[in-house]
Amino acid sequence: MSALRKRTYEILDIGKKQDKIGRIIDIFLILLISLNVLSVILETLPSLNEQQRYYFQLFEIISVIIFTVEYLARVWSAIEEQDLKYHHPFWGRIIYMLTPMAMIDLIVILPFYLSMFVGVDLRFMRVLRLLRVFKLTRYSSSMSLLLQVLHRESRSIGAALFVLFMMIIVASSLTYFAEHDAQPDVFSSIPAAMWWAIVTMTTVGYGDVIPATVMGKVLASMISIMSLGIVALPAGLLASGFSEALRQRRRTYEKMVDMAVQDGV
Amino acid sequence: MSALRKRTYEILDIGKKQDKIGRIIDIFLILLISLNVLSVILETLPSLNEQQRYYFQLFEIISVIIFTVEYLARVWSAIEEQDLKYHHPFWGRIIYMLTPMAMIDLIVILPFYLSMFVGVDLRFMRVLRLLRVFKLTRYSSSMSLLLQVLHRESRSIGAALFVLFMMIIVASSLTYFAEHDAQPDVFSSIPAAMWWAIVTMTTVGYGDVIPATVMGKVLASMISIMSLGIVALPAGLLASGFSEALRQRRRTYEKMVDMAVQDGV
Amino acid sequence: MSALRKRTYEILDIGKKQDKIGRIIDIFLILLISLNVLSVILETLPSLNEQQRYYFQLFEIISVIIFTVEYLARVWSAIEEQDLKYHHPFWGRIIYMLTPMAMIDLIVILPFYLSMFVGVDLRFMRVLRLLRVFKLTRYSSSMSLLLQVLHRESRSIGAALFVLFMMIIVASSLTYFAEHDAQPDVFSSIPAAMWWAIVTMTTVGYGDVIPATVMGKVLASMISIMSLGIVALPAGLLASGFSEALRQRRRTYEKMVDMAVQDGV
Amino acid sequence: MSALRKRTYEILDIGKKQDKIGRIIDIFLILLISLNVLSVILETLPSLNEQQRYYFQLFEIISVIIFTVEYLARVWSAIEEQDLKYHHPFWGRIIYMLTPMAMIDLIVILPFYLSMFVGVDLRFMRVLRLLRVFKLTRYSSSMSLLLQVLHRESRSIGAALFVLFMMIIVASSLTYFAEHDAQPDVFSSIPAAMWWAIVTMTTVGYGDVIPATVMGKVLASMISIMSLGIVALPAGLLASGFSEALRQRRRTYEKMVDMAVQDGV
Repeated sequence: MSALRKRTYEILDIGKKQDKIGRIIDIFLILLISLNVLSVILETLPSLNEQQRYYFQLFEIISVIIFTVEYLARVWSAIEEQDLKYHHPFWGRIIYMLTPMAMIDLIVILPFYLSMFVGVDLRFMRVLRLLRVFKLTRYSSSMSLLLQVLHRESRSIGAALFVLFMMIIVASSLTYFAEHDAQPDVFSSIPAAMWWAIVTMTTVGYGDVIPATVMGKVLASMISIMSLGIVALPAGLLASGFSEALRQRRRTYEKMVDMAVQDGV
Repeated sequence: MSALRKRTYEILDIGKKQDKIGRIIDIFLILLISLNVLSVILETLPSLNEQQRYYFQLFEIISVIIFTVEYLARVWSAIEEQDLKYHHPFWGRIIYMLTPMAMIDLIVILPFYLSMFVGVDLRFMRVLRLLRVFKLTRYSSSMSLLLQVLHRESRSIGAALFVLFMMIIVASSLTYFAEHDAQPDVFSSIPAAMWWAIVTMTTVGYGDVIPATVMGKVLASMISIMSLGIVALPAGLLASGFSEALRQRRRTYEKMVDMAVQDGV
Repeated sequence: MSALRKRTYEILDIGKKQDKIGRIIDIFLILLISLNVLSVILETLPSLNEQQRYYFQLFEIISVIIFTVEYLARVWSAIEEQDLKYHHPFWGRIIYMLTPMAMIDLIVILPFYLSMFVGVDLRFMRVLRLLRVFKLTRYSSSMSLLLQVLHRESRSIGAALFVLFMMIIVASSLTYFAEHDAQPDVFSSIPAAMWWAIVTMTTVGYGDVIPATVMGKVLASMISIMSLGIVALPAGLLASGFSEALRQRRRTYEKMVDMAVQDGV
Repeated sequence: MSALRKRTYEILDIGKKQDKIGRIIDIFLILLISLNVLSVILETLPSLNEQQRYYFQLFEIISVIIFTVEYLARVWSAIEEQDLKYHHPFWGRIIYMLTPMAMIDLIVILPFYLSMFVGVDLRFMRVLRLLRVFKLTRYSSSMSLLLQVLHRESRSIGAALFVLFMMIIVASSLTYFAEHDAQPDVFSSIPAAMWWAIVTMTTVGYGDVIPATVMGKVLASMISIMSLGIVALPAGLLASGFSEALRQRRRTYEKMVDMAVQDGV
């Protein structure tokens, strides 16, 4: 029993990938998660017929069963982790169940079981099913790297966002005062002008709201030129932080290889 | 009296934040300023009814009273500042009242009192009330950092803007000559073509003005490809200057910690 | 015969450009390839008359003949290459024929001969003819440099693309749920919303699909601001990798010149 | 006479700016050029009346006279330059007249005199008058710095543009084949599709041409994501080159100051 639990833990753990069965299970789960996300996306197509909807439902049931087995196996084998705090048979599993990844594992299967007993809003269920995409983060280090960069650069990115936020308020207010009389329907209020300001400053430029007066066009020209610099600030900080973190990770990895080689000698 | 003034100064000063009451006052003022900005924005919603307008007005009156008290307290306690030039009971306060932050503090409350005696344009008053957003810069160092970067890199950003300005003139003139005959209504003059050129070169691309002739489209293609490089110049300079200044500030901070530690030893 | 083969190899080889005839042949081929690409592009113009179509066809036949001669000459002289693996009269040429560049040389002339015997789809043939543009990569090192950078930075660019891909899914799903009821025609399904999400996040912003509800606009605003940072990640990594590779190539070149100078001494 | 010529040269020369009269003349000329550019732009406004047009014409005549005097003074005093090749009374002036800046000085006044004798196309004359904006480059070092960067980075920017150019051809051709049947009017030919491809890849996104088929939308999505990286290449290279050149110029300037100080000691 204990040997089986240890084996289960080894198979499900991401770190030890010399394990062949573990690798196959990983690839199978990545494929299953990807197909689940694809199925949530495709299910919204209005052109689906009855039979196709049936197949999607069938796939959903099978997926939930597999994800449930995966979840139970993870909780069951959690006490095999090296970290001492997981070692207690009961509390160790509770602690594991409260980790973010285990929470996601639970949330993405729970609504299925709930819908058997209570009527759950279909739209809400779909959003929860879509959260399965975050199960992929277990297999990808880039997402956690980005979160790490966001955390480390949070002060400077926050500063850049504050400047951007101030500029959006000033830009939208001034343009509102310039355009409100000429286009009372589109520039009906400052919140409406903020929609225009954001669409313009991010250079998306849908063209649904366009200043019509000379004053408004002069303001819009100045805003779009100035925003080029302001908008580049958070993007630049995030990009340089991300590329810095990638370089650091590569260096750490090389150091570990170096140390392993020296240890061997 | 003098002790109370010293205490008032300590509470309102941003630098000394071990002070608990000072912190609470800070957070209260930040919240009040934010709510004021929000209220100016929301007041423009056309869907508001009489009662809601009444609450907004009430909130405005209360805010002005608080900001007035804050302003008077700041002027009164200004002579407690370490800088010698503020120490004279009369001239010190006058000098303080002429600092940019104190000017803003005054400007954002003055129109309220003026409107009691003289008829003031409602739109103009709203713009002045919106300036309250700049009171936030006292609590944020990012805005002052950006202004500092703009000052330091002003020559190089100015150079990049000059190149951009030349290119806008040349691009709009050439496109005007190419498109004026085909679309005399939209490309009616070079200033009209400049609106198109700026919208295109900043890659906003509303789609309200689009070249129709082959010549105009070839010109627009060349301009939009070239502008990618030209437009990136000021943005790149500002972004690198900002990120450099952030790094420098962090280093200065670490040095200060180091010195404090060494002094302790 | 062997001397002629050696001379042919020298003329067609890109590396040795002290050769005057080789240079002329190179420029002639670059011009011919460029004219071919131009002709495929111009042939689609609906305003062409019968005679012009005839000239295009004539040019196509002449081009195919020249490219065939070029291909045969390359295969014939391939065994003159310094690399030993090409030296065998039969297998050496087979190995050469399987290199990517030789494959492209064959693919861009093959459909012409095939169409003589079998009916080939005209559209498919045009796509294959357009592939001739890739023959230019033989004369340009920038394309191979970019592929090299893509290969070296593939892990980090892949990581950035994974984050972008996750964000597109989450953004399109949330906006679909917010907008589907208000605009069932445009936000008909999540795949339809993905089209909107990609157009918005890349800041292209055609304006064919625009959120209409307040919730949708708030989501779109947050998405477009966040995407500025996310979208800058792969672009930034590629740009810095490319500029790094260019710097490295320049340094390598300078080292080679240095060594040549020292050898001379 | 010779003293007057030397004085004229000193006043018109940009380098020696301790000269007070020279400074005033400079500012006057910069203002005059700026007003000339503004006048060419404003003259195209259709709302001008007869009298306003008369004032513009008067200003044009006065400007041409001043620019003519400036040009003659420059040619006359050119032989005072330190460079030996300008010293010959006749050939020196001819050599000076062939420098790019002197050519521009001549071109922007010539059409005025020509129009007295021959009928010159009004549109063509306006374009030539607009060239006066380039007279400003004499007073700004940023334009020449940009040209210098473009020259030095020409190989790498050319490489990036070549990749961009290949991608535009491939993207427009594929989208043409995917969309031609569904939208024969907008995707009428590959050149028409190239207009779409450039507008999309530069993220301008007017919205006048939008793919309608699923295949076309998938292609457009991939193209717009890929183009983010490709389009960033030339922009990044230019921006980093420009910022590098600015840093270098600052360092050179500081070195010159250092040397001057040491010489003083």
